[in-house]
Amino acid sequence: MTEDERTIRGLVDGWFAASRAGDYATILSLMTEDAVFMAPGAKPFGREAFIAAAQTAKNIRLEGKSEIEEIQVLGDWAYLRSHIEIAAIPVFGQPVRRSGHTLTILRKEADGQWRVARDANLLTAESARG
Amino acid sequence: MTEDERTIRGLVDGWFAASRAGDYATILSLMTEDAVFMAPGAKPFGREAFIAAAQTAKNIRLEGKSEIEEIQVLGDWAYLRSHIEIAAIPVFGQPVRRSGHTLTILRKEADGQWRVARDANLLTAESARG
Repeated sequence: MTEDERTIRGLVDGWFAASRAGDYATILSLMTEDAVFMAPGAKPFGREAFIAAAQTAKNIRLEGKSEIEEIQVLGDWAYLRSHIEIAAIPVFGQPVRRSGHTLTILRKEADGQWRVARDANLLTAESARG
Repeated sequence: MTEDERTIRGLVDGWFAASRAGDYATILSLMTEDAVFMAPGAKPFGREAFIAAAQTAKNIRLEGKSEIEEIQVLGDWAYLRSHIEIAAIPVFGQPVRRSGHTLTILRKEADGQWRVARDANLLTAESARG
């Protein structure tokens, strides 16, 4: 495993840990300024919408796991594919479980840090899957 | 616009034209041997499953349009984001309309041809959209 690949795996772990902890500052530090997030049935959105959505969900506890299926490092760019299982657990009510695959493009920026630049999240609710 | 970007735009046009024409041989020539396709609620699949799905749908006429929202060429790799509207029109019955965004990774192979290597298709049926 190359140093870059190890760093990118650490970034994914850090993103998940920050999501569980509701630590938005850390999540924002792991995405580029121009990051674009894509999900089924939604318009692509950037950092601001990501923060707004995360704050709306701040009373929801997240649990989940991510398995990286492929990482390709292409110089200062990389892509990765993963499979994610996540449960959003509100204070009251039933957990919402979602799972599915992601395709993510990362960029190594001028400060030497890898960050998420583009992310296609194909997760669906369990009831919606065939 | 660079020569590579022009070529990639031509590839997208060619893919759409071949889909409309049911020309699988051309579509297969536009993807890498190890291509991976991803869609919501499905396991990632490769060339063989792509062909099988296309042949199942061979009595269904496809109409649609694609708008490229971003192309980034990174040496021998590129990614593109697009918005697609598509209608699958069976011989009998109602058309099924789907629309949404895609994130696609392309690779320029040893023969100098750009091909689709990874594709995340986030299209949803119209009734499923918010």
